[in-house]
Amino acid sequence: MRPLILITNDDGIVAKGLHTLCIEAVKFGDVVVMAPETNSSGKSHSLTTDRPLRVRTINSNQWLFSHHSSTCPPLTDNDHSLSVYACEGTPVDCVKLAVEHFCPRQPDMVLSGINHGSNSSINILYSGTMGAVVEASALGINSIGFSLLNHNPEADFSSTTPYIHKIIETILLHPLPLGTSLNVNIPRTDKTGPIKGIHICHQAKAKWVDSYQERTDPQGRPYWWLTGKFLCEDAPEASDEYALSAGYISIVPIQSDFTDYSAINSLKQLFPI
Amino acid sequence: MRPLILITNDDGIVAKGLHTLCIEAVKFGDVVVMAPETNSSGKSHSLTTDRPLRVRTINSNQWLFSHHSSTCPPLTDNDHSLSVYACEGTPVDCVKLAVEHFCPRQPDMVLSGINHGSNSSINILYSGTMGAVVEASALGINSIGFSLLNHNPEADFSSTTPYIHKIIETILLHPLPLGTSLNVNIPRTDKTGPIKGIHICHQAKAKWVDSYQERTDPQGRPYWWLTGKFLCEDAPEASDEYALSAGYISIVPIQSDFTDYSAINSLKQLFPI
Repeated sequence: MRPLILITNDDGIVAKGLHTLCIEAVKFGDVVVMAPETNSSGKSHSLTTDRPLRVRTINSNQWLFSHHSSTCPPLTDNDHSLSVYACEGTPVDCVKLAVEHFCPRQPDMVLSGINHGSNSSINILYSGTMGAVVEASALGINSIGFSLLNHNPEADFSSTTPYIHKIIETILLHPLPLGTSLNVNIPRTDKTGPIKGIHICHQAKAKWVDSYQERTDPQGRPYWWLTGKFLCEDAPEASDEYALSAGYISIVPIQSDFTDYSAINSLKQLFPI
Repeated sequence: MRPLILITNDDGIVAKGLHTLCIEAVKFGDVVVMAPETNSSGKSHSLTTDRPLRVRTINSNQWLFSHHSSTCPPLTDNDHSLSVYACEGTPVDCVKLAVEHFCPRQPDMVLSGINHGSNSSINILYSGTMGAVVEASALGINSIGFSLLNHNPEADFSSTTPYIHKIIETILLHPLPLGTSLNVNIPRTDKTGPIKGIHICHQAKAKWVDSYQERTDPQGRPYWWLTGKFLCEDAPEASDEYALSAGYISIVPIQSDFTDYSAINSLKQLFPI
């Protein structure tokens, strides 16, 4: 049986990166796409609890060719199965609802992206793309998030696809350990030149500073816009930020157990039983 | 100088658990409360990116006594400083905006909660309470999230306060390592009897299953409500689920580096440079 691959993202159902990822995925198996109706960047691992979810079924060929009529390989009914849905929820909602109600069986792999913009380092905390990936991992499904370091909605993804192909192929053959997923970030070739290869990395230490711009509305009342500067405090050679700045794709293995085991013994001394 | 403590939650500015936590915190230092205007449960680490944030300044004495006129200790202007704000954003927005614009200096500690309901095990992924805590930790601030295993808005928090007092006191004296925060869950005394003590734990392996109820609207169209059953797959003695079921408070140290270091070597073999 061909592998079943579920795809989602956080930029929404019309994003070019989602289409690009789908075109690679259908080469490997049957594909279900369920993505948010609207942009859900920054939604992290959030769930919709206060209203029900609706799902819109989309004509998969119209959807696929809407962005990629020139680059999309011809797909016939014999060599692929592709179902496409848009959901009013978050990326995590998409994964949960698709796995339970819209996939014909448990997916062999969940892919998220290709995100328009970086999810390296601390950005994984805020990322809806990676929220979906970690959710799939917690459900026991092999999962990978892909991000290109380019926010442009019309970003050129052509340099990414050979690497995405190779990563999907490798992980289908060699599934990840239970509870581990991958955060893949891809550098911009127009900034750092042709992609030099793949580095396995750890998450760099970083934070966002100067995060808000204060403004005043026409009635004289203040309001604050999210903005901010990315401050990388520590990017040693083994970190994702270093690899990306050197023109390599970074792959960071991510765990869904957030326990800091190294802190347990000292805390036991502070709080003896 | 007295410690400065920032408090937030995800149940919103009117939640009883937030008031309870504030009453404990003012015993230790100057307090700034900034909490979401409305319930933000399940918001995880999400940020508001698509609209600006507004902030409402609240009379702190009216706020504090609205829930707790009978249990609140008398506060005078000499022995406390308390500022209270409500923000239209998520718990993470509250932490970021308060630290940058509403705290008179960098807080010594961020507290979140007391959440009405569990944030043990995998629930940390979805939790707005813990999103705020991990954000503070990423900003380099000591931070602790508190949750009571009781969703009732009128839950009785009286059994929690001696332990919360002790935990705040201990961590003010012995700050956590940079990048580590605490996830504190407190059992219900009406379910498991008087609290037996504190256990330092790791996050139990669990997942939510049967997550959606399908319904049909009066026009015959389907929609899906989030629901689900919590399925704990593995609760060994050292886990938070085990400690809570035995009537102990669980404290899990949480890291903001999500790298799965144990997977790096095998991935390097799959993707050689």
